[in-house]
Amino acid sequence: MTNHEFYMDLALKNASAMKGQTSPNPLVGSVLVRDGEIVGIGAHMKAGEPHAEIHALRMAGEKAKGATAYVTLEPCSHHGRTGPCAVALVEAGVAKVVIATLDPNPLVAGRGVKILEEAGIEVIIGVREKESRKMNEVFNKYIVTKKPFVTLKAATTLDGKIAAHTGHSQWITSNDARTDVHHLRSENEAILVGVNTIIKDNSELTARIPGGRHPIRVIMDTRLRIPLDAKVVKDRKAPTWIFTGREVDGKKVEKLVEAGVKVFHTSNSDFVDPEEVLTILGEQGITSVFIEAGGTVNGSFFEKKLIDKIVLYIAPKLIGGKDAPTFLEGNGLAVMSEAIELVDCTFEQIGVDWKFTGYPIFK
Amino acid sequence: MTNHEFYMDLALKNASAMKGQTSPNPLVGSVLVRDGEIVGIGAHMKAGEPHAEIHALRMAGEKAKGATAYVTLEPCSHHGRTGPCAVALVEAGVAKVVIATLDPNPLVAGRGVKILEEAGIEVIIGVREKESRKMNEVFNKYIVTKKPFVTLKAATTLDGKIAAHTGHSQWITSNDARTDVHHLRSENEAILVGVNTIIKDNSELTARIPGGRHPIRVIMDTRLRIPLDAKVVKDRKAPTWIFTGREVDGKKVEKLVEAGVKVFHTSNSDFVDPEEVLTILGEQGITSVFIEAGGTVNGSFFEKKLIDKIVLYIAPKLIGGKDAPTFLEGNGLAVMSEAIELVDCTFEQIGVDWKFTGYPIFK
Repeated sequence: MTNHEFYMDLALKNASAMKGQTSPNPLVGSVLVRDGEIVGIGAHMKAGEPHAEIHALRMAGEKAKGATAYVTLEPCSHHGRTGPCAVALVEAGVAKVVIATLDPNPLVAGRGVKILEEAGIEVIIGVREKESRKMNEVFNKYIVTKKPFVTLKAATTLDGKIAAHTGHSQWITSNDARTDVHHLRSENEAILVGVNTIIKDNSELTARIPGGRHPIRVIMDTRLRIPLDAKVVKDRKAPTWIFTGREVDGKKVEKLVEAGVKVFHTSNSDFVDPEEVLTILGEQGITSVFIEAGGTVNGSFFEKKLIDKIVLYIAPKLIGGKDAPTFLEGNGLAVMSEAIELVDCTFEQIGVDWKFTGYPIFK
Repeated sequence: MTNHEFYMDLALKNASAMKGQTSPNPLVGSVLVRDGEIVGIGAHMKAGEPHAEIHALRMAGEKAKGATAYVTLEPCSHHGRTGPCAVALVEAGVAKVVIATLDPNPLVAGRGVKILEEAGIEVIIGVREKESRKMNEVFNKYIVTKKPFVTLKAATTLDGKIAAHTGHSQWITSNDARTDVHHLRSENEAILVGVNTIIKDNSELTARIPGGRHPIRVIMDTRLRIPLDAKVVKDRKAPTWIFTGREVDGKKVEKLVEAGVKVFHTSNSDFVDPEEVLTILGEQGITSVFIEAGGTVNGSFFEKKLIDKIVLYIAPKLIGGKDAPTFLEGNGLAVMSEAIELVDCTFEQIGVDWKFTGYPIFK
């Protein structure tokens, strides 16, 4: 590990400690180093409060002069509450700035660097870039596309099934893995399923962990088949948003609205287009969606290339069955060479189960 | 790690170094320790040659007196070429014997220990037991049941498919994983597939690695549909054994026999019973079978509880498809609580793919 990586890791550590409290801003950390000594550390803690670099500069005071600044994200060039951070770094007299990654917004990326370089400051870009981008993966997508970051989660047996041939599926994974899922629910702003999941399991779709924040419950339900006594309709534990077809029973819509449910009519009558759902969710300010649906709904997102991340829990057990469902159905691709590859994959053990994460690269 | 574990690990290391050269005997290692110094090491190297303990005792000479003997398998109590090892340990005057695991054969297990204890030697059993049993998993099953140890191998996409909905499957995993499979083929005495795999892929089923030993190719083919020009019929690279139904076309049998293929008629006419196949293979002296079949054949072994070990390669890619096949089909079990759990599971990365191994515990 180089010195650059050592200090950037510290900046990343401080940045990621603020996870969940900076929205709608990204996680950012900064470290100031002079003559081999750390003279300031900072992180962005809350929207409306100073950026990471400003905290670090204030801590360093006069010692910022001639220092090297490590920042996990390109210093901003825009005038917010504390002025452009790039200008603040120039004014403080830092000698060098090491940046993990440029601004995710291509419209402004490089502007902060330009301000620094024009002031004669040496700039190094790309130290721990991957780690920094991953830390802000949700922000990075939303800020550019105005569509939520989509994580698809599934739990399967080792032989790839999400249920027995009878449909029975409770439970595939252990308590430990299911608790981990509740943490992911809590980290996402919305959870999405098809109406069949509600009809079959009457799922509550909440984050049942201490301090858990329930996501908005999004149900895709073309023909508005959702039972009026479903938990997600009656329990008022979290907002429930139903995405339905163009023409559905108006009386049922009224009853759902009376129960506090939000009903979105989409533009087709025979299916709900997942792309349209994501566009509407983005317009509503939802930056992250956690899909816990069956193979058909998952397949519809897959075929439209709308999945950003896969989280798969694999239980070390076998159920068998030609008719047992898998987590990705629909038509599927025709030849292996067309299969969608995943990158940045990790496997870790959670209790007796295994957790896989990876990022599909759609062609 | 205790001293016992340290010395037993060394014994295991020496034992497993002989993998592939001791058949039909098990792998066994031994270490002799006196006053904190190793005075002898030994391993069984080849059938007909001395057992591990004898080598270690010879190396130690007079220093064996009062020593502690570590042995990965209970010292034998029968008269082979070098006499019972338990007696040899007694005669050499060892003070203590640490054993990883008792003899796998329940008819003789404990007899070696009895000889030692009756001579006043302290005996400790169970140090690194799991590791020792795993090292000889094939031997341990065959010596007791006279049926081969069955390893089922599959390669799937992350969404659990062994092919696209079109049947296209070449290739799911990378070169590295496929090379690993060829090593496993080489370690097994037989490889088993259904005739559909031959018809579809015309597979050669050989171990295509430097120094690879080709397994005997076993084809389950109820109605003798195998093409006479299939590679496994024509290439004579390894023996091919076909297990067929009771009544099949005698002329085709003749042609196959002419081509050097062995044809086994099993007792049913509408299916080949996997249990019968294993019994016959055992009678033929086959101690290990590597199944690389499709979901139907795999399912038939699963339903009869005939699988000892699962090796699964998971490629980080998605193919999708409701009709894409999985590696374990048939009817399958009805509820999740009936699912067959696997123990001693490991996951490791091989190239870009992931390799899972585990042992199903049938109820």
